[in-house]
Amino acid sequence: MPTHLTEISNYAAQVDDKLNSLLQSRTPTGLYEPISYTLSLGGKRLRPALCMLASRLFCGDASHALNPAIGIELFHNFTLLHDDIMDNSPIRRGQPTVFVKWNINTGILSGDAMIVIAYEHLINIEPTLIPQVLTAFNKTALEVCEGQQLDLDFEVLDSVSIPDYIHMVTLKTAVLLAASLKIGALVGGAAIEQAEHLYEYGLNLGIAFQLQDDILDVFGEPDKVGKQAGGDIIANKKTFLYLKSLELASIENREELIDWYSGPTYDVAEKVSKVKALFESANVLYHAEAEKTMYYNNALQHLTALDNIETSILKDFAEALMKREV
Amino acid sequence: MPTHLTEISNYAAQVDDKLNSLLQSRTPTGLYEPISYTLSLGGKRLRPALCMLASRLFCGDASHALNPAIGIELFHNFTLLHDDIMDNSPIRRGQPTVFVKWNINTGILSGDAMIVIAYEHLINIEPTLIPQVLTAFNKTALEVCEGQQLDLDFEVLDSVSIPDYIHMVTLKTAVLLAASLKIGALVGGAAIEQAEHLYEYGLNLGIAFQLQDDILDVFGEPDKVGKQAGGDIIANKKTFLYLKSLELASIENREELIDWYSGPTYDVAEKVSKVKALFESANVLYHAEAEKTMYYNNALQHLTALDNIETSILKDFAEALMKREV
Repeated sequence: MPTHLTEISNYAAQVDDKLNSLLQSRTPTGLYEPISYTLSLGGKRLRPALCMLASRLFCGDASHALNPAIGIELFHNFTLLHDDIMDNSPIRRGQPTVFVKWNINTGILSGDAMIVIAYEHLINIEPTLIPQVLTAFNKTALEVCEGQQLDLDFEVLDSVSIPDYIHMVTLKTAVLLAASLKIGALVGGAAIEQAEHLYEYGLNLGIAFQLQDDILDVFGEPDKVGKQAGGDIIANKKTFLYLKSLELASIENREELIDWYSGPTYDVAEKVSKVKALFESANVLYHAEAEKTMYYNNALQHLTALDNIETSILKDFAEALMKREV
Repeated sequence: MPTHLTEISNYAAQVDDKLNSLLQSRTPTGLYEPISYTLSLGGKRLRPALCMLASRLFCGDASHALNPAIGIELFHNFTLLHDDIMDNSPIRRGQPTVFVKWNINTGILSGDAMIVIAYEHLINIEPTLIPQVLTAFNKTALEVCEGQQLDLDFEVLDSVSIPDYIHMVTLKTAVLLAASLKIGALVGGAAIEQAEHLYEYGLNLGIAFQLQDDILDVFGEPDKVGKQAGGDIIANKKTFLYLKSLELASIENREELIDWYSGPTYDVAEKVSKVKALFESANVLYHAEAEKTMYYNNALQHLTALDNIETSILKDFAEALMKREV
């Protein structure tokens, strides 16, 4: 992380420390060990770190937001745990996922306990703030479930529009980043409108980040991105690149693209290279970059409305996030 | 339900009405239809009805507790939905379970949404009461998860003691009944100690009810009980009857009992009748009745501490519940 963002990495480290000692020696171990395991796999802890930063921006003290930040990270990991079962993903952060290391029942039940523990931490704040914070959180948590459902629906839908796709990633990814900032702001004593501007900053940044993710999957350097190039193509993921290509391609190319995403794949490398060529011939990178930049600029625009607040760190964070430096 | 308990059945009907219209036309339907389906399967709605009754006992108005009552019933149905997956149960209330009618992913995700909706309703109360109510609820929700884990653990454990068993059913079944009453009391303005007496009444009654359930499975009249006689025996459930028999039986009988619960069963009717005979020779019905009566009396004892409150309806309810009239 760039040095001027060490404040954020410090919060992330605090959250990580607390998560690692959270459930020590709780019983039954069959329930709590898989949760501790999930939490020990790490992660950047960006959502809770931003939650704490938002609190500090409004009241000078990040620690007010430590408990809700932990709650948000627990909720996030709960969704990952259950999503891994639904997506049949064997590996998370280089380690076996819970349902692989244990079994599906353990994955379901430990996840369920995890969301309850998330709520325990979310309400461990100044009591008068609980109604506002929980109302924001509940709305977001339900939206995340809706986003996951839409993602599952899209796998089997023939026709998904770009607005449908943006709506899905907004719910599945962006709202939790947004709510992390909003909840931190509320705990730090922000007025509703200020908290809403931070929410919109997070929402737009989250969408821009997802579009960047779609782009890097195909056009990034695998070493830098840290995952298999073309992974979304191999998985037939209906990303922005795919959907926009369907819109823009010639009839012939569109049919070829649909074919690549339908039948069985015998040569994965060939599929990736052919689909990438189809994306390129539709000039889809240009459109994806334009869409990403629009959301990115929207995010920064919401910072300008917070004129008494030192938002430069959030501007720097947005920049570093898009460069994958955080 | 006996006529003097119509107040409770009226609350149950109110809850049922509200649940049936709760999620109309919410999208994505893939997420919400399985929830509506689960809620449409009915159930006695005893927990939410008791929650409302508790409120009425303290403030004369049950409606204060309608929202948390709905939240509690949603949580209860969330646990059933996920438990059905874990227990691989194809049928619930005569209808296919969600994971059978749809699939496991739908069962997981709709359940997840359901617990969030439960929290939405739980906080829809007088704001100053939210911290107390949610603290009680979170504790209980986590205990229910622990109880389910213990139940799964016991399936593969060789040695389970009677106190282990009572602890498991307390968590899995009794605490939610207890918390329903406590939360209703808190919403109705009860003092903490009063709410705790109602909690203990519910806790002890819940344990007594579970012991009654164990007894009726083997010694009840199938027509009256409404389920297959000896279902617990067929499923190798380590109930009070089984565990107490292991304690009391002769070495020879104990080995025979363990044998029946270990190997494959070729003749189910023979198994039920042989195991029942082993239970009878250990005189286990006497001990189960004594244990049940102890918890039942404990429950009623906690009502006597509520001297300014008209608790006769709770006494009548306890009696009717044990006779399976409610």
